Amino acid sequence: MSVLLPSLAIVGVGLIGGSLSLALQAKQAVGRVLGVGRSAKSLQQALDLGLIHEAGSLEQAAQADVVLLATPVAQIPAILQTLAQHIAPHTVITDAGSTKDDVVTAARQALGSKFKQFVPAHPIAGTENSGPSAAFAALYQQRKVVLTPLPETDARAVALVQTMWQTAGANTRLLSPEAHDRIFAAVSHLPHLLAFALVEQLAESIEANDYFDYAASGFRDFTRIAGSSPEMWRDIFFANREALLAHLDQYQTQLNSLRDLLTQTDSTELLKKLSTASRARRHWQAQIERGESFNIAHIDRAD
Amino acid sequence: MSVLLPSLAIVGVGLIGGSLSLALQAKQAVGRVLGVGRSAKSLQQALDLGLIHEAGSLEQAAQADVVLLATPVAQIPAILQTLAQHIAPHTVITDAGSTKDDVVTAARQALGSKFKQFVPAHPIAGTENSGPSAAFAALYQQRKVVLTPLPETDARAVALVQTMWQTAGANTRLLSPEAHDRIFAAVSHLPHLLAFALVEQLAESIEANDYFDYAASGFRDFTRIAGSSPEMWRDIFFANREALLAHLDQYQTQLNSLRDLLTQTDSTELLKKLSTASRARRHWQAQIERGESFNIAHIDRAD
Repeated sequence: MSVLLPSLAIVGVGLIGGSLSLALQAKQAVGRVLGVGRSAKSLQQALDLGLIHEAGSLEQAAQADVVLLATPVAQIPAILQTLAQHIAPHTVITDAGSTKDDVVTAARQALGSKFKQFVPAHPIAGTENSGPSAAFAALYQQRKVVLTPLPETDARAVALVQTMWQTAGANTRLLSPEAHDRIFAAVSHLPHLLAFALVEQLAESIEANDYFDYAASGFRDFTRIAGSSPEMWRDIFFANREALLAHLDQYQTQLNSLRDLLTQTDSTELLKKLSTASRARRHWQAQIERGESFNIAHIDRAD
Repeated sequence: MSVLLPSLAIVGVGLIGGSLSLALQAKQAVGRVLGVGRSAKSLQQALDLGLIHEAGSLEQAAQADVVLLATPVAQIPAILQTLAQHIAPHTVITDAGSTKDDVVTAARQALGSKFKQFVPAHPIAGTENSGPSAAFAALYQQRKVVLTPLPETDARAVALVQTMWQTAGANTRLLSPEAHDRIFAAVSHLPHLLAFALVEQLAESIEANDYFDYAASGFRDFTRIAGSSPEMWRDIFFANREALLAHLDQYQTQLNSLRDLLTQTDSTELLKKLSTASRARRHWQAQIERGESFNIAHIDRAD
């Protein structure tokens, strides 16, 4: 059987791109891997770790079977503009950005008639660590990768990107860019904003030392995501601003309603809300452990 | 050397009380352990697991060297009223409640002139599990136990409770009940309310299945505490309502300010806030791992 990808180019060789390369290499599913990046040190490290076989330019990358853009989202428009000038007819471009509507808009503008060769994607995987040294072949095992192709996207390009991620161990799912951004605003971007907000509030307080000194495991888990890269999350918050603000609105309404129940000593209604949350959270955890999809209609089942 | 506590009574024998008993038994620091509870099945389990040596009544418990109240906080006033009628002159009563000002008020009222024999306390330890079978001797190793004695509290009673917890492996700290409640409103009660609020919001949405289906590790950690007991947390929220509402106010102001920065596309100021949070969170984690106290003044040190 011929190799799935005779050539793969990775723009931004860190945890995300490096782990994909290792996973595909482990399955003999990739030939040459070309790395493109702005840091010579980082590319040398990727070479030393076997994440890539050679370092090169965007012009060279534009000839590969698949080009994965794994840079911060803010850099993608400029990279696409350069790729557009050199892209071969058979080349498929895909990305790994946390937001999709903004990337789709940038790709449509930069690629013009070649936009059909672009498959927007978001691998739902990561660790606390970043950079080439953080990459490992098992990162995508049992993780989801969301593809958000448009009506004009080439169906064979979508199939190739799906097969690539499945070969790396992931489950692929299709969503519209809008649905993707709405869902991830709710389950990822809003929680990050809320965690950053709490830690900032405590850090700015005159009692900061006491607060952090007594903070324990509940605080540790709740705020873990507030230790994430501020630059990356600023970019994500702005890139997905409309959906994020819509969910933040709802959340503020929710907080006002909890505040009212506390003020009015409405114990029954407060318990009802806390119980809904607690059962949903425990149901979700149990479903994940069973490897099943979440179904709110099954929430009253014993978990 | 004589044994520290010839007799210990535990009212509500579950994770908290059972683990203390095991830790003290392991150090030969306790003689007889008496268990008091409303569930015969639970007491039998505690006997079978060796957490207690016998089951008995509150009247018997009132003769022990130390009586630990480890029931839900809502039950404490009624228990104290019964104990007050039988308490021996040498007996010290202490508790394990998550809020302190309300317990102190209830104890003062129930115990009258014997209030000096009560040492309010809060062990900062717990696990996902509860009940006698969850107890283990190492639970309090390197954990904090906060004591909130009042000016009239007997100094020897405070010393005995301190030594008891230190023998079980914990570090003891002294705070006023008000400072305790203000600090834990910030680092524990508010995060719980915020996590319950988010999960409730998503569970009530018509897109609930999509949301939970795509939720990943950031969501998992942020919402872990929303799987906690709704009854226990309703009681804590009401018990510490004033301090909780004050922190919730500040948090809502903080969210409004983040919303404004997003709306105004104030990238510089947003990045500044996210950076403060991220550095504080990473500094806190590093200090914990080094076993050092948090000091906000050291936040710019490389971590």
